[in-house]
Amino acid sequence: MKYLFTNILGSFVLDDQLEVIDNLPFSSAQEYLHPQNNEQKLKKRHPQLTPLPFDKLSKVLLSFKDPQYYDAFYAKNMALTKTAIQQSVSEDIFVMQTIANINELDKTINLLSKRVREWYSWYAPEIVEHLSDHEKLMELICSKNRTELLKESETMGANLDKSHVDEILLLAKQVQELFKLRELHEKYLQKVMQKYCPNLLEIAGATIGAKLMELGKGLKHLALLPASTIQLLGAEKALFRHIKTGARSPKYGIIINHPLIQKAAKASKGKAARMLADKISLCARLDYFKGEFKAKEYRKELERKLGK
Amino acid sequence: MKYLFTNILGSFVLDDQLEVIDNLPFSSAQEYLHPQNNEQKLKKRHPQLTPLPFDKLSKVLLSFKDPQYYDAFYAKNMALTKTAIQQSVSEDIFVMQTIANINELDKTINLLSKRVREWYSWYAPEIVEHLSDHEKLMELICSKNRTELLKESETMGANLDKSHVDEILLLAKQVQELFKLRELHEKYLQKVMQKYCPNLLEIAGATIGAKLMELGKGLKHLALLPASTIQLLGAEKALFRHIKTGARSPKYGIIINHPLIQKAAKASKGKAARMLADKISLCARLDYFKGEFKAKEYRKELERKLGK
Repeated sequence: MKYLFTNILGSFVLDDQLEVIDNLPFSSAQEYLHPQNNEQKLKKRHPQLTPLPFDKLSKVLLSFKDPQYYDAFYAKNMALTKTAIQQSVSEDIFVMQTIANINELDKTINLLSKRVREWYSWYAPEIVEHLSDHEKLMELICSKNRTELLKESETMGANLDKSHVDEILLLAKQVQELFKLRELHEKYLQKVMQKYCPNLLEIAGATIGAKLMELGKGLKHLALLPASTIQLLGAEKALFRHIKTGARSPKYGIIINHPLIQKAAKASKGKAARMLADKISLCARLDYFKGEFKAKEYRKELERKLGK
Repeated sequence: MKYLFTNILGSFVLDDQLEVIDNLPFSSAQEYLHPQNNEQKLKKRHPQLTPLPFDKLSKVLLSFKDPQYYDAFYAKNMALTKTAIQQSVSEDIFVMQTIANINELDKTINLLSKRVREWYSWYAPEIVEHLSDHEKLMELICSKNRTELLKESETMGANLDKSHVDEILLLAKQVQELFKLRELHEKYLQKVMQKYCPNLLEIAGATIGAKLMELGKGLKHLALLPASTIQLLGAEKALFRHIKTGARSPKYGIIINHPLIQKAAKASKGKAARMLADKISLCARLDYFKGEFKAKEYRKELERKLGK
C-alpha cells in the first residue's frame, strides 16, 4: 500500500510504515496553489497510489515536525504570503486611493486658496472680492499684474514691493498646480474605472462611482450590498440619528450629487434616489461578475422615467 | 470779527454772520492730515483771524449740511479712508501671513505625505517602512525607481503598471514642491524680519519670533506685553485650565521650542524660559521703538548664564 501526501514543500509518496519513499518538491509558491501537476507525475511513477486516509494524517504531520524541514517550511510560507499580499492589490485600491486623495486635495486647495485671498487682499482687495471662484482667481493673479487689472487710483490695496507680491504669487502658483493635479487624478480615475467597472462609471460618473466604492469598501462588497444601503451610503450620521432619536430618515447619501437627482423636483428626489440606487446596485454586480455593458440602457431608462 | 474753520473740504474764513467769505480747499486727503499750511495762508490774507469758538460750531456745521457739499464730502471721505487702509499695511502683516501660511503648509504636507506613504506602500512597502522622514522619502521615490532601490524578489509590493506608479509620483512631486515653498517662505520671513525687527529675529529666530508676533497680534502689541505674558504665549489653554481648575500653571508657551530652553536641564527650564522671555520683551521694544541692535549681547549673556 502506497499513500500520496502533499504539503507546502511538495508531494510525497509514503509506504505502509508511513516512511517517505519518493518525493517531488515544489519549486515555487505558485506550484503549491496548483498541486495537481506534481501529483499526476508521482501517480505515473507509482501506479497504486491512494490518498492518505484521515486517521493516519496526524502521524504523518508529526514526522514533518523534524527540524530538517524548518528552514524550508519558513521559506516556502514566506514566499506564499508575499505572493498573496502582492496579488491582493486590485483596481479597487487604485480607485479608492485616488478618490481619497482627490478629497484631500480639495481640502488643501480650499485651505491654501483662502490664505491667498487673505494675503492678496492687502494688495488688491477689489480683485479678490470680485472673483469668488478660487481657480479663476489664481489664474488671474498669476497671469496678470495689478496694473493690468486695476487703475492705481481705484484700489484700496497698499503699494507693495515686488518681493512681497512675489511671495504671494509663489503660493498662488502652487495652488494652481494642485488644481492641475486634481484634474489629472480625475482623468486617471476615469481610465481605471473604464476598464475595471465600466457600468458603474457610466451610471454614476467617476467621482460618485469612486466614492461609492470607497464607502462600500471595494467593488466586491459594493456589489453585495442591497440597493437600499447604496442609496444611503454617505448618510450614516443621519441614519443613526434616525435610528436613535426617531428623527426623519435620510432619503439619500452621496448620490444626491448625481445630476439625475439634482434635476429632479424636490418632491420626487427620494423616489429618484431609490431608482438610481437600484441601477447602481445592478451595475456594480455586472462589473464585479464581469457581466456585459448595460449601463447605457439603464441610464436612458432612468432619464425617460424621471424626465416625465 | 473773522473766524477760521477747517473741515475735510478745506479751510474757511467766516464773518461774524458765520457766512463764508474766503476758502482754500484741500486738493488731496494728505493735506487734510496736515491742515497747518492752508490755515497759515488764510491767516496771512486775513490778519485778524480767530479760531471758531465752540458755541458757534453747531451753527456752522448745520450750514455745511447743504446738499451742494454732499458729493465733495463723500469723495474726500472715501479718499481719506482709502489712504488710511493703504497705509495700515505694515511688515507685521507680511510676517503674520507668512508664518500662518507656513503652519498651513506643514499641515498640508503632512496630510499629503501620509497619502503618498499609504499609496506607495502597495508598490514598495519596504522603502516606505524604512524611511520615516517625509521629505527624504519623497526625494527618493521621485529620483529613483523601484528596481534601483529593491530587488524584485525582496519586495512584498505588487508589480504595478507604470501608469499606476506615475499617478503616485505626481503627488509625491507636488509634496516636494510644497516643501520647497515652505523653505522659500522661511527665507523670505528672515529677510523681512531682518529689516523690521532684527533684535527679535536674533534672539528668538525666524519661526519663533514670527509666531510670537502672530500670537501677540503684531509687533506693537507684542512690545507692550509684559515679559511674563510673552513667556506663556501659545500656552493659553493650559493657563486657563490652571485658573479654572487649579491645575499646575504652565511654565512656557511656544518659546519651549527655542534651542536655549531645549538645551536647559529639566529642572531649570522654567527659569530659562523666564530669562528668555525677559530678553524677548526687551528686543520687541527695541525693534518697535527703533532702538539699537543689542540682541547679540543679550543672547551671549543668556548663553553664559544658562550654560553654567
